[in-house]
Amino acid sequence: MRNVNAAEAAGLLAQKDRILILTHRNPDGDTLGSGFALLHALQHLGKTARVVCNDAIPPKYDYMRKGITEQVFEASFVVAVDIADTKLLGAKLCEAYGGRVDLCIDHHLSNTKYADALFLEECAATCELIYRVIQALGVEITPEIADCIYTGLSTDTGCFRYSNVTPETLELAAEMLRKGADFDEINRVMFETKTKTYLKLEALVLDALELQFNGCCAMVVITQEMFRKSGSNESECDGIASLPRKIEGVEVGLTLREREDGSYKVSVRTYAPYDASRICAKLGGGGHARAAGCEIEAGALEAGKNRLLDAVRSELETP
Amino acid sequence: MRNVNAAEAAGLLAQKDRILILTHRNPDGDTLGSGFALLHALQHLGKTARVVCNDAIPPKYDYMRKGITEQVFEASFVVAVDIADTKLLGAKLCEAYGGRVDLCIDHHLSNTKYADALFLEECAATCELIYRVIQALGVEITPEIADCIYTGLSTDTGCFRYSNVTPETLELAAEMLRKGADFDEINRVMFETKTKTYLKLEALVLDALELQFNGCCAMVVITQEMFRKSGSNESECDGIASLPRKIEGVEVGLTLREREDGSYKVSVRTYAPYDASRICAKLGGGGHARAAGCEIEAGALEAGKNRLLDAVRSELETP
Repeated sequence: MRNVNAAEAAGLLAQKDRILILTHRNPDGDTLGSGFALLHALQHLGKTARVVCNDAIPPKYDYMRKGITEQVFEASFVVAVDIADTKLLGAKLCEAYGGRVDLCIDHHLSNTKYADALFLEECAATCELIYRVIQALGVEITPEIADCIYTGLSTDTGCFRYSNVTPETLELAAEMLRKGADFDEINRVMFETKTKTYLKLEALVLDALELQFNGCCAMVVITQEMFRKSGSNESECDGIASLPRKIEGVEVGLTLREREDGSYKVSVRTYAPYDASRICAKLGGGGHARAAGCEIEAGALEAGKNRLLDAVRSELETP
Repeated sequence: MRNVNAAEAAGLLAQKDRILILTHRNPDGDTLGSGFALLHALQHLGKTARVVCNDAIPPKYDYMRKGITEQVFEASFVVAVDIADTKLLGAKLCEAYGGRVDLCIDHHLSNTKYADALFLEECAATCELIYRVIQALGVEITPEIADCIYTGLSTDTGCFRYSNVTPETLELAAEMLRKGADFDEINRVMFETKTKTYLKLEALVLDALELQFNGCCAMVVITQEMFRKSGSNESECDGIASLPRKIEGVEVGLTLREREDGSYKVSVRTYAPYDASRICAKLGGGGHARAAGCEIEAGALEAGKNRLLDAVRSELETP
């Protein structure tokens, strides 16, 4: 593995063709925004390229495909965007490409350095790095690219609310508005719209919320039964991980979402000085200081909750 | 009345002393951010000045007073910030100062031009105009001023979500981060923290939500009884006006809040092309294209709701 900068990453891409862009499973606005922004730029350069994802891409992101030509080909260069660990590719993609990632562009300091070349910098969104690669490729920022980059910036920062925002994040967002990003509609879809089914789910979740450690920690467990009862599903739940931390006095918010196979996806959100990635590391996960994730295996919910709460207790005691 | 620009507004302030800064009743982050930013700047210039408000200022805004000297004096120059109409001063302040406002700095195109000199430009937040006046006064932006300006920018845009955001709004926010605004803590207090009482209120409100016009319009009525039942109060309700519009398919959201005197404060939020200020104008109110307000008198709820829904119908039919 060698570290590369934006110009070197662009240099690698410029030399290659038949480029496969991998996004992470349970895809979010930053991995998709990064993938599709890069895809737009590469196709603009006349290259054959494609974005793939282990999981279905929710239809709300369809606008990112505007102007894209669907291309089928045997990959000769593999790029992973916003993916800290090959495990996050999902089973199918991990098996096919986990061992042959040529370039990774990522903003997670917890990156496991699985790629041949790694362009890694800590910033609010991987899209900030993708923007620099596209600039280095000499491709003009079209409104379509601006939409993708803006999406990554806004979704990874809770629409510019979280502590990961920097002046550069806001300035790049301003630049994407100037380049024609349809920010109003993107914000509406990503942040302002709640389905009736999601609102039902939120009510069930809030009802089952548990406070721990004198109200410093709030935990919600979202079961498959809650999804059934509300008619909601995982794809509507992007924002739910930030819910427990919103309660006054809560410093650490825990969201456990049951998957269909009975395992749990755990999202941890903290306020300074508490470190979410340190909590998740104790359960084999990782991420950022204020937002991180880990897993609980099927059938091990109670044991997993206890390990998680132990990790939270030790973080609250010695942050 | 004469229109002035930022330099002329600064010129007027530079000449005067014993400056009283009026903020609007039921104060929000933009009127207070504007008022306190200007107060910091004027006191920095050695002037005697003070911010007043008809209503109690919620304690969550206390950070804006950091470094301010409380000064009591007979006003010789009166400035109104973020106030479109003297009615919005509230009864006491309107009686005392409604007829003698020397300078108004405001971003509402519906401004009734009640002041001797008016610095008016449509932008996301009055704080954008205040920043330009402070620059014209030659005062350096301290972290305290940056906190105030950032608060106005973020609270009037739903933390940079709404369609009123421009590249300039985001760039000014970036500049405020560089000047030391404690944006993380401000966002936490303004957007991320919900009290348990507010969450209870939200559940009651969502339960009573009515959909109109095939789901294009959602209306919530927040009664004093709901405040009593939940233990919440008006000062916790800044964000509630955006709630009805969040439901999928809703283009016009109506929030009616009962005051202690039985009258209702009506907030209207729309998506393009529907014009909230046109709806409110039919009930004697005003505001912006996507966010506006009006009143319903005590005892006239049913008649007022009907007039409001008529205004919504005609807006939905011919936007």
